[in-house]
Amino acid sequence: MTHDFLESLKNELGPDVFFGDDIPARYHNDWSGMTPVRPLALVRARTTEHVSKTLRLCHQHKVPVTPQGGLTGLAGGARPIEGGVALSLDRMNAIEEIDTVMATMTVQAGVPLGVAQRTAEDAGLFLGLDLGARDSCLIGGNLSTNAGGNRVIRFGMAREHVLGMEVVLPDGTIITSLNKMLKNNAGYDLKQLFIGSEGTLGVITRAVLRLQAKPADLATAFCGCPDFPSMLELLKSARQHLGAALTSFEVMWPSFYDFMTGRLPSLRRAFSEQHGIYVLIENGGRNAEDNRMLLETVLGEALEKGWVSDAILPASNREARDLWAVRESVSEYGKLMGPTTAFDVGVPTSAAGRLVEAVEAAVSERWPDAIGLSYGHIGDSNLHFVCNIPSAGTNQPYKAITELVFDLVAKEGGTISAEHGIGLVKKPYLKLSRTPEELALMGKIKHALDPHNVLNTGKVLPGSEY
Amino acid sequence: MTHDFLESLKNELGPDVFFGDDIPARYHNDWSGMTPVRPLALVRARTTEHVSKTLRLCHQHKVPVTPQGGLTGLAGGARPIEGGVALSLDRMNAIEEIDTVMATMTVQAGVPLGVAQRTAEDAGLFLGLDLGARDSCLIGGNLSTNAGGNRVIRFGMAREHVLGMEVVLPDGTIITSLNKMLKNNAGYDLKQLFIGSEGTLGVITRAVLRLQAKPADLATAFCGCPDFPSMLELLKSARQHLGAALTSFEVMWPSFYDFMTGRLPSLRRAFSEQHGIYVLIENGGRNAEDNRMLLETVLGEALEKGWVSDAILPASNREARDLWAVRESVSEYGKLMGPTTAFDVGVPTSAAGRLVEAVEAAVSERWPDAIGLSYGHIGDSNLHFVCNIPSAGTNQPYKAITELVFDLVAKEGGTISAEHGIGLVKKPYLKLSRTPEELALMGKIKHALDPHNVLNTGKVLPGSEY
Repeated sequence: MTHDFLESLKNELGPDVFFGDDIPARYHNDWSGMTPVRPLALVRARTTEHVSKTLRLCHQHKVPVTPQGGLTGLAGGARPIEGGVALSLDRMNAIEEIDTVMATMTVQAGVPLGVAQRTAEDAGLFLGLDLGARDSCLIGGNLSTNAGGNRVIRFGMAREHVLGMEVVLPDGTIITSLNKMLKNNAGYDLKQLFIGSEGTLGVITRAVLRLQAKPADLATAFCGCPDFPSMLELLKSARQHLGAALTSFEVMWPSFYDFMTGRLPSLRRAFSEQHGIYVLIENGGRNAEDNRMLLETVLGEALEKGWVSDAILPASNREARDLWAVRESVSEYGKLMGPTTAFDVGVPTSAAGRLVEAVEAAVSERWPDAIGLSYGHIGDSNLHFVCNIPSAGTNQPYKAITELVFDLVAKEGGTISAEHGIGLVKKPYLKLSRTPEELALMGKIKHALDPHNVLNTGKVLPGSEY
Repeated sequence: MTHDFLESLKNELGPDVFFGDDIPARYHNDWSGMTPVRPLALVRARTTEHVSKTLRLCHQHKVPVTPQGGLTGLAGGARPIEGGVALSLDRMNAIEEIDTVMATMTVQAGVPLGVAQRTAEDAGLFLGLDLGARDSCLIGGNLSTNAGGNRVIRFGMAREHVLGMEVVLPDGTIITSLNKMLKNNAGYDLKQLFIGSEGTLGVITRAVLRLQAKPADLATAFCGCPDFPSMLELLKSARQHLGAALTSFEVMWPSFYDFMTGRLPSLRRAFSEQHGIYVLIENGGRNAEDNRMLLETVLGEALEKGWVSDAILPASNREARDLWAVRESVSEYGKLMGPTTAFDVGVPTSAAGRLVEAVEAAVSERWPDAIGLSYGHIGDSNLHFVCNIPSAGTNQPYKAITELVFDLVAKEGGTISAEHGIGLVKKPYLKLSRTPEELALMGKIKHALDPHNVLNTGKVLPGSEY
């Protein structure tokens, strides 16, 4: 049967299918750091019909197929299966249309996010989705994982940037719903099913993205707050005064701020004194002058009320970049810390202070030499924690740290993944964030669409092992 | 079997189930104007467990059950079935929590929208969802129909106001996902399946709503534009300059504007001259003074470029209300026109001018005495058209008008329902807006969740007759 299958694949996909050593190593894994796997075959689709043919054959022959985008995922969702097919969308990279009246952009799944961003800006518009991997990740992967990133508080997750989609179902059926309208209540909104399901229900081939007006110059402020509750008052006040213009509200605990400014010579501390917690605020309304003025009002009140102990409103873009440099130094922690266990958990914002205290204390108690750094997109209730145990060297206790942190997150009613997704890496822990009834419903939907369990087999859903 | 079923219902629901003449007439229909139907029984649930018991019994006995909210729907989605059960959520009307740190509100499905709005405002926050029926419609109905309304261009449809939900599946299983976090990528986002599926997949019992900062005073402008293309240039410019602060962009064609100002003595024309098309713009940024200034900038440029022929920036709130009064006179057209056929279609914005011309011409050609009024939330690509044929008296050719309009909408790639939904009224035409593959996928999902087809039987999906 495998022989029949491979022959059919060759016949139908011709020069777009690769086998064995002809499969470049980059398709053996994503950025999860798991062990690479060489699949049976790699299809690099050029058209939606190629995707449909591949899925139809895999469905008929019950061969697992792993969709792949830019392979920048951190959860192993695009890691292929030995004996299965990897289906890459990276050649479907055309921008098909920009509609400046509707403020939409129609793209194929293989367009890199950065290319889509620049094309929108060239047309006088703006794509609100942004993340660090912008020049490597592809739109199809962003949508199938419901990517988050840097501008969620202002523009929302990937889901909120999609108006229409084309998807290929596990049996090869092509569902074309390239809607461009903001309002459309004619039947079920099918695209919602595929966004964020990490390629387990269908393969996204094209999308209509919603574009925004280009933002004006942002105003930035950096604050030291006495403690977590006073920072929450600042958050409420910023939300009240700045409304939708609040573009960032990034929080750094001393564990993160002191470590980074102490270890990286390029960074300088903004204040001579120590503070309980540090906040970067960005205001992105339609008028640059007004952005700064409103931020001054917020900070004035906060200083008076004691929610903020000290604050800086940078006088130049350069000074603003210096303040952001500390927050953006996260890309350096691997170099400074060695191997880490990293988290992208979420908890209701009011519980975030308690959670960080509990996590830092529990990790230190169990591994006294632990280095743990806490920071987060607190406005989105998303916390990051990265941890290295120096005495463990290259043999970090990943599993023990993960279980310790996830248990504390579950106790606060939080989510084990706010943005990176479940993939393979977090699958064993999904039950900590979702009830048995929710998991059963996910399984029911998966079975209805993919009865042979061939599409991204083994990912996300417990019990979908291969 | 019916006897057994009724006995079980009585035993399990006790005083919360009503039969025959004890069922008040208001539960026999919604606002669709269809013929009322008295169901076999009415359950007025007080708890999620009541909903679960009702659905479990209906599922076991294969008795159709129609969920009901405020019964303000225009598409017949909540009209009960003879021999079936009507399940009203109107007694589940508690506001369970307001979280001012997360800016969320947890409500039961039977809370009237207006009550939720006022409660949010009392807490210093703001619920972005608003529609004319605010004091009659219930949150559960708003979410299950993905309601649109007056603020979509700024805050989005109902879907975008939901962070978490509790839903009862057709077999009685309770799915509690009362997430409060903006970011949560732990598995499928199940709530998306139930929002906008008009009660055919599950019954929404509770929801976590996302609240906003209270908006500042709005600035309003009223413009006369020479024609549709120049109005589109004004739209692009307003979007560019006002960004997310653009709160309304409402368009009235002369057919609507001249009819209303000519027939209603309380309304006065804003301009002495006639214009090709009329636009109301609202700017709702964080600063009242700035709102007006930015709007002046947009209008100044538009007058110079000839996109706008004449414009008014009202000097007082009272003057602004007078300008809005014409747009809001839609609630009066029934009195002025008699029986009408009304549409809430959507088309890509650039095709809207062509569609209105084609619809008005085709209707006039077929019924020379027709009165047809065109207006719309053009910023959301949503058009309304209402039509009366005076010579037809009480015997309006609803079906012929509907088919004529929907055919023209389908030719432009539009949607037969931008906001009101499909229900029973538009079910025969759903195939004009959705492909056979899309309809088959909707059917597959329906069958997976509701194999006996008992939940809101006969609604939305073609072929789901009872």
